[in-house]
Amino acid sequence: MSEPIDLLLRPTWVVPVIPDRVALKGHSVAIRDGAIVAVLPADEADRRFTAKEIADLPGHALIPGLVNLHAHASMSLMRGIADDLPLMQWLQEAIWPAEGKHVSHAFVRDGTALAADEMLRGGITTCNEMYFHPDAAAEAFAAAGMRATVGVAVLEFPTPYAANADEYFRKGLAARDKWQGHPLIRFAMAPHAPYTVSDDSLARVASLAAELDCPIHMHIHETAHEIAESLSQHGVRPLARLARLGLLGPGMIAVHAVHLDAAEIELLASQGCAIAHCPSSNMKLASGIAPVAAMLDKGLTVGLGTDGAASNNRLDLFEEMRQAALLAKVSTMDPTVVPAHTALRMATLDGAKALGLDHLIGSIEPGKRADLCAVALDTVNNTPCFDPVSHLVYVAGRESVAHVWVDGEKRVEKGRTVLRNSNKELIGIATMWQTRLEC
Amino acid sequence: MSEPIDLLLRPTWVVPVIPDRVALKGHSVAIRDGAIVAVLPADEADRRFTAKEIADLPGHALIPGLVNLHAHASMSLMRGIADDLPLMQWLQEAIWPAEGKHVSHAFVRDGTALAADEMLRGGITTCNEMYFHPDAAAEAFAAAGMRATVGVAVLEFPTPYAANADEYFRKGLAARDKWQGHPLIRFAMAPHAPYTVSDDSLARVASLAAELDCPIHMHIHETAHEIAESLSQHGVRPLARLARLGLLGPGMIAVHAVHLDAAEIELLASQGCAIAHCPSSNMKLASGIAPVAAMLDKGLTVGLGTDGAASNNRLDLFEEMRQAALLAKVSTMDPTVVPAHTALRMATLDGAKALGLDHLIGSIEPGKRADLCAVALDTVNNTPCFDPVSHLVYVAGRESVAHVWVDGEKRVEKGRTVLRNSNKELIGIATMWQTRLEC
Repeated sequence: MSEPIDLLLRPTWVVPVIPDRVALKGHSVAIRDGAIVAVLPADEADRRFTAKEIADLPGHALIPGLVNLHAHASMSLMRGIADDLPLMQWLQEAIWPAEGKHVSHAFVRDGTALAADEMLRGGITTCNEMYFHPDAAAEAFAAAGMRATVGVAVLEFPTPYAANADEYFRKGLAARDKWQGHPLIRFAMAPHAPYTVSDDSLARVASLAAELDCPIHMHIHETAHEIAESLSQHGVRPLARLARLGLLGPGMIAVHAVHLDAAEIELLASQGCAIAHCPSSNMKLASGIAPVAAMLDKGLTVGLGTDGAASNNRLDLFEEMRQAALLAKVSTMDPTVVPAHTALRMATLDGAKALGLDHLIGSIEPGKRADLCAVALDTVNNTPCFDPVSHLVYVAGRESVAHVWVDGEKRVEKGRTVLRNSNKELIGIATMWQTRLEC
Repeated sequence: MSEPIDLLLRPTWVVPVIPDRVALKGHSVAIRDGAIVAVLPADEADRRFTAKEIADLPGHALIPGLVNLHAHASMSLMRGIADDLPLMQWLQEAIWPAEGKHVSHAFVRDGTALAADEMLRGGITTCNEMYFHPDAAAEAFAAAGMRATVGVAVLEFPTPYAANADEYFRKGLAARDKWQGHPLIRFAMAPHAPYTVSDDSLARVASLAAELDCPIHMHIHETAHEIAESLSQHGVRPLARLARLGLLGPGMIAVHAVHLDAAEIELLASQGCAIAHCPSSNMKLASGIAPVAAMLDKGLTVGLGTDGAASNNRLDLFEEMRQAALLAKVSTMDPTVVPAHTALRMATLDGAKALGLDHLIGSIEPGKRADLCAVALDTVNNTPCFDPVSHLVYVAGRESVAHVWVDGEKRVEKGRTVLRNSNKELIGIATMWQTRLEC
């Protein structure tokens, strides 16, 4: 008797990430109720299962859906609004004034919808999100059918979203309560950065994260300026202050972590913290080069993030995989560091681990949710293909993403978002926001 | 009376590169006999010209065709054959054995056809090529309808192509003679590198380049090892040796130029040399970071190259524009260096200047050949668009290239190569070579 399943995927290669450094040729992936049931040789699968739907994917590599470990999704509405500027001028003259004037529930909902569409078509199935109006972001991610961990933004300074830290906590936690139990949406604590959050608020973040058992998502040691400022204001580097306030631990996702000394890498590793490495953003803003090879040597979990489209300017994790590999090589003068398999693991399993979601996503294994991405490696630009994993990192690019599933549901088919009839409305809304921002 | 032309292009933006830092909105480009006749406001164009064909390009930016200033096109057949290895291991264990066994006229012709297809669809209309069997490369570029400067490869060591330097010169110059007068194909002298070519041969290259009035295309100061070796063998750094042998001058295209001291940058600038900057290749092989900001400061002409697909692994000049900008910023810790307009100029006009072709190509100006590329900026991923030039470098990617013209002839339409009915044959031939290489 054959076993009924919902979907059988038959790609040329399955790159499961677990086990590591493997590309399985001629294997199928069986899916039932949104979960992966089995990964097995194609002929065995044909004997064992009767599928409601079979997807033949010749020339495709099936990989876990990518995990974007750091984004400000709705900043897509400010994509390219100001470039090639020093960080503080960029923030003070372009980003903060625009945010102060325009950011609202509607802005975040519309901008997140735009970003979710870009991310899904680029093979990203999970986003770790930090911005104002987390409720609006959750709404857009849920509508797009994308998995997200949305941050409870915490800052001290007033914005149109919240007048003070108390209000940030209150609004963010209310959003968290509202979305409790949603299959795709989770929440994290997201204190913006050491230089924008007080000791009191940070201590509250630590105790809330412990109480709610959720990650802490925070920019840390992005620039040399941040460290100098902390030394002058607090007498210690930011990480020492965060350690003292109890923020370091397995739930901590330290975003950027560009400027770390050897002792700080040891500290983060010993505390079980994770890193969200955002190479394009760090390069474009001239923040510096994170010591990724040293982090990996010490066993740190290092995932990859796009950052927001105002500083990158594309939400493209294929680009970040390639960039992470290339930047690690040139900065250490060692072409063997961050090989292709490692870059792919960073963009999938390591991101999932950082979010505490590696029991659900990040690899193609029985029991995990079917968040999957099929990449067409049979195009002219991908030919010849000696090693599919090398191609995923160094050649393919997001334009090769053909199909994407979240929880076993098809979200992208032949490069087009399934839940949307046309791009016109999405582009129209984004263009309306552009018009407002240009005023 | 209205003036007859062949083609009128009506994009939303024309980014002419000359004048610099301009994006003309609502302008048209008029083309007759493969040349640009005028760039003018759309309504004036409609009054002045009667066009055989009109192409409305709403939402598109029209830019000069990109100039790939350094490629080994046929190495596309070895795309991803070996990655994440130290340079010498990569060369000695993977590339050289494969070349020794397989490189032939047919290999170079087929590999160049594959590369030309990839490059054209990515907006590259001119390629500066260096490899064995230049006659075969010229044949493939001409068949693809792409502009190329093909190098007369010169090395000392024997390969299946030539037994010694004499034979390299003889075969290369014969190919040059054969292609004299072709509208798209030119030749250059291409001594491989200081460490593979003798003093005698280099002197001969210098006198031939002067006699034939053609560029010299050469890998120079790619790795620290190359410099150390020259110091031990010749007692001087490679550039000093090349200067002594008379190779430096306005025709010299120094590829990579990663390891330069301040005096060497001055020397190259004072001699009017050009640089072919290949950031992805330099990063992937961990060669180092070329001092591009300092080069530009000294007035050096710096174009961009992809290098071969065995070391990059994609022939994508949009990626190299982005990479050049990002790498210059992070390596100088200054986000204002290599702004978007500069990166675009490097990939167009500066490449044309380096090749001595800036009277023909590299900008959208009356009198120049109509080598053009239309980039669709009206997609979801490119929305909103505050500044088309920022988007060309930081956002768009080669997947946004819609149409490409060479000499006024359409080579790419809606992302597909016009001269090819299907990709099947091209992919089939490349896959056949893959099978042979895997033996």
